[in-house]
Amino acid sequence: MRISVRLYQAIKAKELGLTVAKRDDFSQWYTQSLIRSEMLDYSDVSGCYILRPWGYAIWAHIQAFMNTEFKSRGIQDSYFPLLIPEPAIQREQAHLEGFSPEVAWVTHAGDAPLNVRLAVRPTSETAIYPAYSRWIKTWRDLPLRLNQWCNVVRWEFKNPQPLIRSREFLWQEGHSAFASREEADAEVRDILGLYRRVFEEMLAVPVMEGVKSETEKFAGAEYTTTVEAFIPEAGRAIQGATSHGLGQNFSRMFDIKFEDGKGQLQYAWQNSWGFTTRSIGVMAMVHGDDQGMVLPPRVATTQVVVLPVGITTRTDSAISNRIRQECQTIAAQLNAGGIRTMADLAENQTPGWKFSHWELKGVPLRIEVGPKELDSEAYSYAVRYDGTKGRMLKSDLVNIVTLQLESIHNGMLSKARKKYLESIIPATNWDTVTQALAAGKMCMIPWCEEASCERSIKERTSEQAIAGAKCLCIPFEQPFEILSNLSCPACSRPSKRWTLFARSY
Amino acid sequence: MRISVRLYQAIKAKELGLTVAKRDDFSQWYTQSLIRSEMLDYSDVSGCYILRPWGYAIWAHIQAFMNTEFKSRGIQDSYFPLLIPEPAIQREQAHLEGFSPEVAWVTHAGDAPLNVRLAVRPTSETAIYPAYSRWIKTWRDLPLRLNQWCNVVRWEFKNPQPLIRSREFLWQEGHSAFASREEADAEVRDILGLYRRVFEEMLAVPVMEGVKSETEKFAGAEYTTTVEAFIPEAGRAIQGATSHGLGQNFSRMFDIKFEDGKGQLQYAWQNSWGFTTRSIGVMAMVHGDDQGMVLPPRVATTQVVVLPVGITTRTDSAISNRIRQECQTIAAQLNAGGIRTMADLAENQTPGWKFSHWELKGVPLRIEVGPKELDSEAYSYAVRYDGTKGRMLKSDLVNIVTLQLESIHNGMLSKARKKYLESIIPATNWDTVTQALAAGKMCMIPWCEEASCERSIKERTSEQAIAGAKCLCIPFEQPFEILSNLSCPACSRPSKRWTLFARSY
Repeated sequence: MRISVRLYQAIKAKELGLTVAKRDDFSQWYTQSLIRSEMLDYSDVSGCYILRPWGYAIWAHIQAFMNTEFKSRGIQDSYFPLLIPEPAIQREQAHLEGFSPEVAWVTHAGDAPLNVRLAVRPTSETAIYPAYSRWIKTWRDLPLRLNQWCNVVRWEFKNPQPLIRSREFLWQEGHSAFASREEADAEVRDILGLYRRVFEEMLAVPVMEGVKSETEKFAGAEYTTTVEAFIPEAGRAIQGATSHGLGQNFSRMFDIKFEDGKGQLQYAWQNSWGFTTRSIGVMAMVHGDDQGMVLPPRVATTQVVVLPVGITTRTDSAISNRIRQECQTIAAQLNAGGIRTMADLAENQTPGWKFSHWELKGVPLRIEVGPKELDSEAYSYAVRYDGTKGRMLKSDLVNIVTLQLESIHNGMLSKARKKYLESIIPATNWDTVTQALAAGKMCMIPWCEEASCERSIKERTSEQAIAGAKCLCIPFEQPFEILSNLSCPACSRPSKRWTLFARSY
Repeated sequence: MRISVRLYQAIKAKELGLTVAKRDDFSQWYTQSLIRSEMLDYSDVSGCYILRPWGYAIWAHIQAFMNTEFKSRGIQDSYFPLLIPEPAIQREQAHLEGFSPEVAWVTHAGDAPLNVRLAVRPTSETAIYPAYSRWIKTWRDLPLRLNQWCNVVRWEFKNPQPLIRSREFLWQEGHSAFASREEADAEVRDILGLYRRVFEEMLAVPVMEGVKSETEKFAGAEYTTTVEAFIPEAGRAIQGATSHGLGQNFSRMFDIKFEDGKGQLQYAWQNSWGFTTRSIGVMAMVHGDDQGMVLPPRVATTQVVVLPVGITTRTDSAISNRIRQECQTIAAQLNAGGIRTMADLAENQTPGWKFSHWELKGVPLRIEVGPKELDSEAYSYAVRYDGTKGRMLKSDLVNIVTLQLESIHNGMLSKARKKYLESIIPATNWDTVTQALAAGKMCMIPWCEEASCERSIKERTSEQAIAGAKCLCIPFEQPFEILSNLSCPACSRPSKRWTLFARSY
């Protein structure tokens, strides 16, 4: 393992933290930053991870945000069984083929073999729609829009990676049935927009909205919409969350019919959509640095840490007591103002150790109180994500810190968005495509939208055991006009729409 | 199926609702009331049920209450994997024996057999404690107190019963490790008290707190504390929730040791505790009646339903419009005041149909607005649980309804508690024991606490394919003094403590 000079110095200076730099070994850095910040840990089952409180709390913040949005839309929470009988999951053939290699099967209970194998849900379309078929009789029963927060298992045999590619993960899955295609399609896009907002407004992560290619769509869907993130240091894109138009594919298979008010029986129009704990991994990858995790304020367990500094063996004990008390007062004041704050008053660690510790854990803002601060009008502070240091007035502290946290969120999102946009290379010829990919960028090409071309791009861009470039999405907001004379840079057929390709997780 | 005259009349009068009375066929009544009120539904997997929004919302209210309590105690949320490798679950032998017959095993992923079978968690002690062993090194790492909200599977082969005995259910499980037995034991009782509060303060269900007999304790625990509910109409008790003192049993098996600050390595003292969706079933059983579900206000999705009444074909349309508008105004006003209210203005159903529908669903309070109400100072209302009808002033409506909902909660709890206490028969001789059980009561006996006697009581009280009486708990608050000359009514050995026995779910 190669260690950069920069990182070596950082380790010597602090004797705490990561031993790998983000630029040197991204994959090692990523895992280390998650484990050492205590976001998560390994378990006894390969590919399954423990979400520790520091990581789980991020999920809880996301849940709270989404639940409010779901509720305002009239979407209701429910819970469907974990286990799906094999015949049910086999009913939609394209769907089965999509998931079958990854299904974990329950075959025995106690010592007794089961008559029918039970799939541990990889997604719940086939568990939920038999019930929809019972519940939906007339147009009055529509729309039916249910959500559940649950665990799913997809037993992938590729390299597991915490949060990004794990065999069990947490998610919400929404399943709606409507009387018309228009309503179903409108909700697909509405929910995708909500997912974009969770990435941007909670996780400070920029994403692009678009539709997947036919090859990359959800098994059994008519089409899949997606929000795509990008990790510049890894040179890889990552699917953030997806929302699927199911058309009548599942309603035909599961016999979900309604009387339309004119005496006709119609198949329902459906969609489904899911947002997973993978989003936490994307956030960690986008914002983290060589000091560790960098948390966006709106999902951070602790938004502000208050530390006593400048206390030495020669410090008068009255002064050091006043410093500690002031730390506690600040924390109490900020917590009362709705800002999640902790004062770290542990006496067995130096301020330097604590600085590194809370930087590793990614706390957005640090406030320092030392002898100098006691009788001045301001505290020292440090911002985690960009290292800014300064002094903030003691008066009106809750408002000042509130504004600063907002500014940190906006700053993190702007910084990440700038890098995102810089990572997109428009490419109208094949040389630019390969150069962009070699440089770890995405390319935006005027694409023909042919599956054979998509396969060929993947093959031709596969090198050195690195996966080839995939179609990420055809952006809803097309970035340029398609000139009628542009041909697909991969196959020279006429181009249809600008499409984003990159290597991908 | 026998139908009582009372029920027959009810059906004729309403042509909606249940076809079985609670007293006539309790088990049928219970299932019907859950399914028809749309609390839950069957799934394709025997013993696994769908929690529909009307039922799931109750769980969400319980979660919100508990999360606040956990947080105030410093207990943190986390998430551990669903699947536990067979060797891990085998490590604590008594624990394995307790769960082994009920474990659902994942043996294959896709087409590939797994090297090691994976248990779908029946409870997570053996999944979580290997991590505790890594995380706990010194006394500074203690206490460690984590909770998770998740699903568990116990593949029981007995008759499934929705919520009460289902193969998959939702719960929270807490797992704490402390440096001393005293702290661990104190938390066991503290959490049990919290469980009692959820039953009483959220579900309006009275329970008794006590300790389980040796035979009935949790597999692997030193002792198990429990809250026990009772269903008078079924003549059966039901375990509400349990909190276990694990002593050092698991810390020895999983090597959870800490340096105690004096250079000594000690095994941690542990406990674990869980509260499940079974509680919703208990609530349904305790409060439901022949009209259907009866929901306690604090967990009801809809606390108040507002209905237009007295509109006939001859009603002036200006009047009927005013009535509908008034209904909407009331709902808006109450919702703004934090009271979950809906106005049911559907025009294709009669008021009578709606009365029955919302009674079946168990909405605590109904407000009626008719022509008479428009220009008077009061609305008509009806209370679901006791059928009280009356008129409430329009002015200060939010406060009046708030107080009324409080009064409904207290009334439901008092009514249920009275029946609970009436169901306990003190029994110092065997005849009284058998008479009490035959009458569908619990008996409180001065018990010897011998396992052989417990077995014998179970056997001797088993009749007509009905399970025999079990030890429910030895109440913490002993109801009477134990007189030194009292002997166990079952075996005549000296008695130790008053103990509650009954037939049980």
